[in-house]
Amino acid sequence: MELIHGGDTEGYLLKTGREPLDFSSNSNPLGVPEGVIKAISEAAARADRYPDPLCRRLTAGLSEAEGVPPEHILCGNGAADLIFRLVLAVRPRNILVTAPAFAEYEKAVGTVGAGVHRFFLRKENSFDITDDIVDSIVPGIDMVFITNPNNPTGRCAGRELVFRIHEKCVKTGALLVLDECFNGFLDEPEKYSCTDLALIGGNVLILKAFTKIYGIPGVRLGYCICPDPGLLERMYEAGQPWPVSSLAQQAGIAALREGEYVKKARQIVRIQRGKMVTALRGMGFEVFEPTANYIFFKSDIPDLARRMRRLGVLIRDCSNYVGLEDGYCRVAVRGEEENAALLEALKTAIEAE
Amino acid sequence: MELIHGGDTEGYLLKTGREPLDFSSNSNPLGVPEGVIKAISEAAARADRYPDPLCRRLTAGLSEAEGVPPEHILCGNGAADLIFRLVLAVRPRNILVTAPAFAEYEKAVGTVGAGVHRFFLRKENSFDITDDIVDSIVPGIDMVFITNPNNPTGRCAGRELVFRIHEKCVKTGALLVLDECFNGFLDEPEKYSCTDLALIGGNVLILKAFTKIYGIPGVRLGYCICPDPGLLERMYEAGQPWPVSSLAQQAGIAALREGEYVKKARQIVRIQRGKMVTALRGMGFEVFEPTANYIFFKSDIPDLARRMRRLGVLIRDCSNYVGLEDGYCRVAVRGEEENAALLEALKTAIEAE
Repeated sequence: MELIHGGDTEGYLLKTGREPLDFSSNSNPLGVPEGVIKAISEAAARADRYPDPLCRRLTAGLSEAEGVPPEHILCGNGAADLIFRLVLAVRPRNILVTAPAFAEYEKAVGTVGAGVHRFFLRKENSFDITDDIVDSIVPGIDMVFITNPNNPTGRCAGRELVFRIHEKCVKTGALLVLDECFNGFLDEPEKYSCTDLALIGGNVLILKAFTKIYGIPGVRLGYCICPDPGLLERMYEAGQPWPVSSLAQQAGIAALREGEYVKKARQIVRIQRGKMVTALRGMGFEVFEPTANYIFFKSDIPDLARRMRRLGVLIRDCSNYVGLEDGYCRVAVRGEEENAALLEALKTAIEAE
Repeated sequence: MELIHGGDTEGYLLKTGREPLDFSSNSNPLGVPEGVIKAISEAAARADRYPDPLCRRLTAGLSEAEGVPPEHILCGNGAADLIFRLVLAVRPRNILVTAPAFAEYEKAVGTVGAGVHRFFLRKENSFDITDDIVDSIVPGIDMVFITNPNNPTGRCAGRELVFRIHEKCVKTGALLVLDECFNGFLDEPEKYSCTDLALIGGNVLILKAFTKIYGIPGVRLGYCICPDPGLLERMYEAGQPWPVSSLAQQAGIAALREGEYVKKARQIVRIQRGKMVTALRGMGFEVFEPTANYIFFKSDIPDLARRMRRLGVLIRDCSNYVGLEDGYCRVAVRGEEENAALLEALKTAIEAE
């Protein structure tokens, strides 16, 4: 089985016997919050019961945190689980997706054989989504995937553009799937978040994850907000009835109390990101101004990711993204010490050329 | 959203403010093994990494425990996750399923619009699968679901019959999906298990779960054994790429060391089951001889499950299973004290008639 995503630390460990320094997946540099570790440990002793199939307590907490009614929320085994359920529930015939974008959108629509239309993000626009995407949303497109901020590019679309995209979706009858999984790492998340689209109603589903902002990708927990409870019900029915473990549900409930942790993480990311951008540019890499907890850049060093791997550092080679050629890479923003080790390894890799 | 399965303790708790005594789902009466609780707690601190998408360590452990090559094993977010993935990977046009059977088979094949053919299990045969099922496996049926022991009936088919079913599947080109999730609770599991069919090769996929025998339904962990690695790869690709949380992977690895716990649970189940059957028959219920950790019976008391619920005890009303009418119920076999409380509540419910 081919692994197309970053974060395969286990594969590295099994091959080399050593723990890698992982910059190939983007999680919270602060690690798992103490309160979440405690909640999981407590939940473990009670795992002899089935999880609540409907995640009622967690959903109630999310409802309060997000300011939307609980019936507009569905939790899943990570946001990726929700993407597959969504596609099975809607069965789009044609979708529009940016290129590059998270590969699971296309993989998911493959299960229903939908046609894939691509809006290519261009280097000359710093890979920003441009206004002309609105013209690509034509009748016949059932579903439009927008990731904001985008992954792997780290570029963020303004609310005005997202609202215009949504307006066009309403007009043509497409469902806008707005993936805000990395929104929490922006300096000003609320300035860019469009969850209020779900309050206006209709034609929008917003994907969110605990994975990144709460530093728990190992737990598997995501959710979505959608003003159409009927669609959420069809999504729930499109897969197994206990998608979220009780460990994950308790982790999520505890995570919602970690406001200080999130603020601190955001601050660290902002400061470290700035330092890393300066250093990467100093090394000659073409860095696209990042907005979240990862940095996207172009390198002229052949096989940079492989060289780094040999040095014990995993970075994300982005050449397998549709719409990107060789040389594009992504690195996570982590804590000061780890970032220094990354930069040191990059220097070594460059010098070895 | 409608909940069709047992085990909704959370729903009861949210409604009444009290913890119910749950006999409506069938888990290990010993609760979560200590070693598993410890493994989950340790894994929680490391959940800031993505889980191994391929569950390599867990699969290696299962390979040793089951005596099959690791490439013949796929882990999932509970066995139910694997059922949905299997159906998406194979896309059967027609399936054969017993009635009654686990409802998720039919729900899963609904995602690909397959036709459902039913082999009705009959009361006059104690709901046993009978030889004539072989005649129902005709060309055009792509997939045959057999649960052994069956749930909710608790009846177990002998190896000879399962092998004949498999032989017919090979002949007609159907895939035999053999669900052995409750096998571990039989007095002599190895006498009934047919995992060796996967060693012979071809046309079989065997579903297994950690959920039941290791008492961890809250963790979500199942696996399947299939001699066709290509099919397992298609199943992996048919859903999100991180199906099993790292908490569940570590729980599974730890569970495989719990041989003594399993033996002890099996002994308790055997003794308690005998006592409960005697007591239930003494109360006038028609009990179908059980083989695993749950007891299936027919009652003439109207609304028995609802009455029991009012007494704080959840039992499984089986009237929503295709092929069963009103009056059929299932109760789990639990520890001595809890079973006594169940029997006491049943007496009260009967007397209130």
